[in-house]
Amino acid sequence: MTDIVMIEAARDRIGNEAVRTPLMSSPFLDKIAGRKVFVKAECLQRTGSFKFRGGWSAVSALEPEVRQRGVIAFSSGNHAQGVALAASLHGIPSVIIMPQDAPRIKVENTRAYGAEIVLFDRSKDDRDAIGATISAERGLTLIRPFDEPLVIAGQGTVGLEIAEQGKEAGIEEAEVLVPCGGGGLTSGVALALEAKAPGFKVRTCEPENFDDVARSLNSGKIERNAALSGSICDAIITPQPGHITFPIMATLCGKGIVVSEEEALRAMVLAFQRLKVVVEPGGAVALAAALFHADQMEAETVIAVASGGNVDADIMAAALSKYA
Amino acid sequence: MTDIVMIEAARDRIGNEAVRTPLMSSPFLDKIAGRKVFVKAECLQRTGSFKFRGGWSAVSALEPEVRQRGVIAFSSGNHAQGVALAASLHGIPSVIIMPQDAPRIKVENTRAYGAEIVLFDRSKDDRDAIGATISAERGLTLIRPFDEPLVIAGQGTVGLEIAEQGKEAGIEEAEVLVPCGGGGLTSGVALALEAKAPGFKVRTCEPENFDDVARSLNSGKIERNAALSGSICDAIITPQPGHITFPIMATLCGKGIVVSEEEALRAMVLAFQRLKVVVEPGGAVALAAALFHADQMEAETVIAVASGGNVDADIMAAALSKYA
Repeated sequence: MTDIVMIEAARDRIGNEAVRTPLMSSPFLDKIAGRKVFVKAECLQRTGSFKFRGGWSAVSALEPEVRQRGVIAFSSGNHAQGVALAASLHGIPSVIIMPQDAPRIKVENTRAYGAEIVLFDRSKDDRDAIGATISAERGLTLIRPFDEPLVIAGQGTVGLEIAEQGKEAGIEEAEVLVPCGGGGLTSGVALALEAKAPGFKVRTCEPENFDDVARSLNSGKIERNAALSGSICDAIITPQPGHITFPIMATLCGKGIVVSEEEALRAMVLAFQRLKVVVEPGGAVALAAALFHADQMEAETVIAVASGGNVDADIMAAALSKYA
Repeated sequence: MTDIVMIEAARDRIGNEAVRTPLMSSPFLDKIAGRKVFVKAECLQRTGSFKFRGGWSAVSALEPEVRQRGVIAFSSGNHAQGVALAASLHGIPSVIIMPQDAPRIKVENTRAYGAEIVLFDRSKDDRDAIGATISAERGLTLIRPFDEPLVIAGQGTVGLEIAEQGKEAGIEEAEVLVPCGGGGLTSGVALALEAKAPGFKVRTCEPENFDDVARSLNSGKIERNAALSGSICDAIITPQPGHITFPIMATLCGKGIVVSEEEALRAMVLAFQRLKVVVEPGGAVALAAALFHADQMEAETVIAVASGGNVDADIMAAALSKYA
């Protein structure tokens, strides 16, 4: 099970391969929130999201003779790109299983990072069977997107940096808001902060109608989303929190915060205007919570993780036209 | 006259007040350029451009009894915001003289950073006379935008960081491409690199039809632009290079590079897609040169300064729609 020793070991394996992303702020954002707001800009991470950390952590921890056979992942999004780049930087093959109807740009980016793409037809193919066959034939290791201790440890390095950068900024108490899908980033950050910055409390952030984690934290057991698609916050839509991540979140996190899609888009536009960084809608839910749900927070300082920046240009253009 | 001692003194006065902006890269940009491309992201600086460094340098160097009376600047853009924030962080008043038809957002931002705004009518008012009257009445010190040794020294801290970050990245030789208006940033960076990274050669970058610096470097004397407005790259449009900055550039810089407006907009879109940072058109001319004018460069590595990110949302939305 992931603990601070595993997270620090992941940090040591990652070394300088990942960007130590900046902790940013703007007086304009502080004014909207009515308190001091910091943004941990993981959108500036390699591949455009924190997922590279977990991918590197998992790939780098494999035994060399296992690793050299390669890795496999199921993803059409940020996890795909993180695993693909981590694998190619290790000089090993990666296979990413994606639906045929995945956006072409995501397929192309993942291929550009060095992965072999295997497409399946959602209407008739069994994704897991395809993956299992390829894995067995080639001896590939599956890298799960969040319910995997080594991946959680890698994402936890975001928390180590928040602890260090918060200390540098003189922050002793804060609520740390994290966009939450399956809970890999949230649980990793929560474990790191428990050990390194006990005055920092993690809160999960989700879009409305996909608030499985907030409901699970309320009820004390894993709750599912009714729908599995249909949100603009695609990066953080999962059926339910993970079996490994949920107990960690239930122990360490405060009450979940739910924001509207419009709030996520407005936060994305404010990050553009005030921080000059590109955040995707799912990556902007924590900033949206900081800016527009201040009544649900108690700490004088909030730190919002901007978890990714892989937004399609047309979505950003539309949001700028509507909300800037 | 500005030298490396003045630049290092400016760095010491700036301390942690300015962001040490990241040196970023993307394999996608390398592929377009056919060589290794790094981007020094000054768009992530406080106030959204490098101008905060020069503003802080000049304000912080004033004798305390002079400083406390306040400072004044003429600018409707990035220099206005840099001076305004530097002044308010020093707890002193600032007056910024702006044309009545300046974009409202720029007026509001500058006011939000703590400045008193004095508007003038371009058609009938004498801007300099208004400024002189206010300065005399209140004993304000004028902070010039580029032809001022202390401002050049402040902008030169960008060069100190490029030298350090280049060394960290293992770069020994590079062409350093700098968006160039009056030449404050360019000459400061060139002086810093001459002292700290002699294998790094500075090249100026400008938009076509406003290539006064490239023509001046060619002829060996100060040349003027025919027009003073009408470029989307408004942040770097000046009538001519400065009397202090030009001799520095003529001594230290290579041949100037000129890019089209379309190339600047395409570079802005690529920075959005591949680096997840927001760059304004004038701030993107160096990246445009790196990506689209590779034939004019010899070094295997280029470092492009992205000097600012204060682009209006409608310009970005239009560029994304057209070029993404």
